[in-house]
Amino acid sequence: MRCSTIVLAALLALMAKVPAAQANYDFDNGNAAIEVVIPSVAPIIFQDISSTAGDATLVLRLTTLVTNAWFDAVAPYHPTAVGVYTSLGRRPASESATNANLNVALLYASYRVFNSLLPHRAADWRNMLIGVGLDPDDDSLDPNTAVGLGNAAGFGVVAGRINDGMNQSGSYGRTHNPMPYMDYTGYTPVNTAYELVDPSRWQPDIQRKGIGLYKVQQFVTPQYALVEPYSYDDRAVFAFPPPRDSNHRRVAAYKAQADAVLAASASLDDQKKLMAELFDNKIEGLGFSAVFVTFAHGLSLMDFIQLDFLTNMAAFDAGIAVWEEKTEYDAVRPFSAIRHIYGDEPVVAYGGPDVGAVSMPASQWKSYLEEADHPEYPSASTCFCAAHAQAVRNYLGTDVLGWQIPRPAGSSRVEPGVTPSVDTVLSFPTWTDYVEICGQSRVWAGVHFQAAVDESRAICDDFGDHAYEYFTSLVDGTADSPRAPSQGM
Amino acid sequence: MRCSTIVLAALLALMAKVPAAQANYDFDNGNAAIEVVIPSVAPIIFQDISSTAGDATLVLRLTTLVTNAWFDAVAPYHPTAVGVYTSLGRRPASESATNANLNVALLYASYRVFNSLLPHRAADWRNMLIGVGLDPDDDSLDPNTAVGLGNAAGFGVVAGRINDGMNQSGSYGRTHNPMPYMDYTGYTPVNTAYELVDPSRWQPDIQRKGIGLYKVQQFVTPQYALVEPYSYDDRAVFAFPPPRDSNHRRVAAYKAQADAVLAASASLDDQKKLMAELFDNKIEGLGFSAVFVTFAHGLSLMDFIQLDFLTNMAAFDAGIAVWEEKTEYDAVRPFSAIRHIYGDEPVVAYGGPDVGAVSMPASQWKSYLEEADHPEYPSASTCFCAAHAQAVRNYLGTDVLGWQIPRPAGSSRVEPGVTPSVDTVLSFPTWTDYVEICGQSRVWAGVHFQAAVDESRAICDDFGDHAYEYFTSLVDGTADSPRAPSQGM
Repeated sequence: MRCSTIVLAALLALMAKVPAAQANYDFDNGNAAIEVVIPSVAPIIFQDISSTAGDATLVLRLTTLVTNAWFDAVAPYHPTAVGVYTSLGRRPASESATNANLNVALLYASYRVFNSLLPHRAADWRNMLIGVGLDPDDDSLDPNTAVGLGNAAGFGVVAGRINDGMNQSGSYGRTHNPMPYMDYTGYTPVNTAYELVDPSRWQPDIQRKGIGLYKVQQFVTPQYALVEPYSYDDRAVFAFPPPRDSNHRRVAAYKAQADAVLAASASLDDQKKLMAELFDNKIEGLGFSAVFVTFAHGLSLMDFIQLDFLTNMAAFDAGIAVWEEKTEYDAVRPFSAIRHIYGDEPVVAYGGPDVGAVSMPASQWKSYLEEADHPEYPSASTCFCAAHAQAVRNYLGTDVLGWQIPRPAGSSRVEPGVTPSVDTVLSFPTWTDYVEICGQSRVWAGVHFQAAVDESRAICDDFGDHAYEYFTSLVDGTADSPRAPSQGM
Repeated sequence: MRCSTIVLAALLALMAKVPAAQANYDFDNGNAAIEVVIPSVAPIIFQDISSTAGDATLVLRLTTLVTNAWFDAVAPYHPTAVGVYTSLGRRPASESATNANLNVALLYASYRVFNSLLPHRAADWRNMLIGVGLDPDDDSLDPNTAVGLGNAAGFGVVAGRINDGMNQSGSYGRTHNPMPYMDYTGYTPVNTAYELVDPSRWQPDIQRKGIGLYKVQQFVTPQYALVEPYSYDDRAVFAFPPPRDSNHRRVAAYKAQADAVLAASASLDDQKKLMAELFDNKIEGLGFSAVFVTFAHGLSLMDFIQLDFLTNMAAFDAGIAVWEEKTEYDAVRPFSAIRHIYGDEPVVAYGGPDVGAVSMPASQWKSYLEEADHPEYPSASTCFCAAHAQAVRNYLGTDVLGWQIPRPAGSSRVEPGVTPSVDTVLSFPTWTDYVEICGQSRVWAGVHFQAAVDESRAICDDFGDHAYEYFTSLVDGTADSPRAPSQGM
């Protein structure tokens, strides 16, 4: 455990800066996915996609596509595996006696995916390869070499997913001035940030950016609901029940679920705040848990790649179903409901750093975390955690997790210098604990009602099972491979 | 000129990183405002306030308050000057034989202002002082020392402006969860980002942030209209005529002014694009021109401080009147009008990098620059430039400017790597040229109609005159000093 704690600390430190060149990188024994690729891309995710990695849709798509590319690139070095978007043959076992070929292949695969997803960072991706002595201008597609396999797998994933419905190119419905990832479904909120016309429905919030600019939310990528999943065909089996208590005409129930959020807000403590921050950050809450188990279980590079693709795919596919429900129900967030019910009447809830639980006008209450840019129901974060956890359980055959995350005093993102008041450890003995806390933390943080968490917990294990089923067919070579490039849905 | 070009290049380079410690800083001969303070704060303005320094209201208030603090801090070293918010006596001429005391005083004054305006960056401000060997824990208010004068002047400006109506504390109308700089006037747009209910009125646009998050604009600080100006009492004298052609019922005129924006967009060339970018960036377009003339005219440190405060005050006060008009007329931006008039019909206009003028559906047209977060009329940028230029003309007694700005090939912010196609120089022989191009660049960039530019050019010299009049009274010691802390309006 100690080793993995150190590795995680080092990863966090690396994320603060572009990794230094590793001219003598140990290709034979290293894990370039963890040691080179993640430290290169993580800071750019925070800068260019989402400053908190809290925007799940774009972050998860990136991590899913790059881990898919790793998987496809190293499949020829596995005894039986085939890729999702490329089927590149089989290499003799002697070529994977060390990690060298796998590392080279995954680095080139990453390079091709990053250049598609974040092309304005081309110089950074070149430096990622140059930093470990590889040539970014090597365009080889020779399936007898690690470079060729990496390039082919990376290009394959790019081609397979460029038209998957997320509107990466920004050209859906437009011939000029592309708007990447822009909604093309025509979603329009019934409420404005200034008026709650329908108290059951989602209201964009006004959120502070930097010291004093305020921006109004827009539902991020409603079209995620239309994206082609990896691991299931029939979406109907995942139907969530309607969020009954978000119907404001059911007055008592509507008030009761809002009161529960206020009560949770009033009960916030350092542990709950830190847990909420952990699971809000998809890189750390989801991704680093996979890195942790890799070290805890002494997984090989091949195993890590498989596990990381499996878990990302599970969460990515879960998100598609969740987005379908979010667009269908367009459900109100707690901040709107609380203002609607109580207006300026006093409520007791979390009142900010150094304040704690306090009586304040309901209209002035704020959730501990900013709401993500989408309707409330169901909880996407909970569903991601449940799908991710179930995928790992399937892969490792155990519910035991044993993840411990040290949080020094004052290390909170939301309340820096204040929270936690003393050095604190976040502890997850089992994956069941992980999912329970992940889900509940969304209520503590004030961004979800309990029902949105409970329904995701009840349903979203299934995505981990479906992903594992498809993954297994890839690993044992029985999957249809390569699959046709996605054409949206 | 060569020297100042080099200095500007160095400043731009410094803005890319926190300045290295200058342990042997030359207090006697240096200009710590230019060499220490600006390089410390500029990158933080870009990170924490506005990534393009295009948000004028918060940027200008910061630069105005810090230059005010410089002015007040060094006033005792001038033969006759008095401060705005502090009147700290007179120091013997021997104490300003070199720049040493002025530099120390302005550094402590900056330190106090920055800690008020950007308190979450406290560590950076400490390092700013420590980097040149000063003690950030020296709280002396002794008016016989440079440290004491700097601290007293800085605290004075903070106290004078903390309640000036901008809602810096975020506590207007709230007892909990402060929202710094949040509107408290109750401004609500009549249009949504999704529907143009009234084609004469402002519509928030949907703007891309990072690779794929989209946010809806909110009018930034409508309360700026209520802030206390430095240099005039009667706002009525600055009344702008109504934006007649933005009335969509005047169909032909409404269409004509929109057509003029499309024609300007179609005529964009490298010079126009770079000019538009220059004046969109208030740090560079306004602030660096003052740094330039400081070197071109060999101004002393005292002169630079006076000029920089004068010009910032002129623009800041101009903005107050402009915001009054923006809130009153709430005028439509070109993008909305063009979509309203033409819908999906083809128009010819700028179509993006590498595209140039092209026929496209009007609904897909985008302005070269993103619109700032406020209604269209009148043009704030033009008014800032006019007020700034007139203030400099008054101070230096000449319209000659002679500013030349080299722009290497591919250095465009909007079209990096593409524009300009060859190394280019932006040239401003006179301040008249500067104002003309500044204003016109807002039409080229597609964010303003011509009338908004013309009216600002016609009126906004006056703010430079008023600012100079008040400034002169401060310098000759006839102003009421200190003035009472502002209590909003």
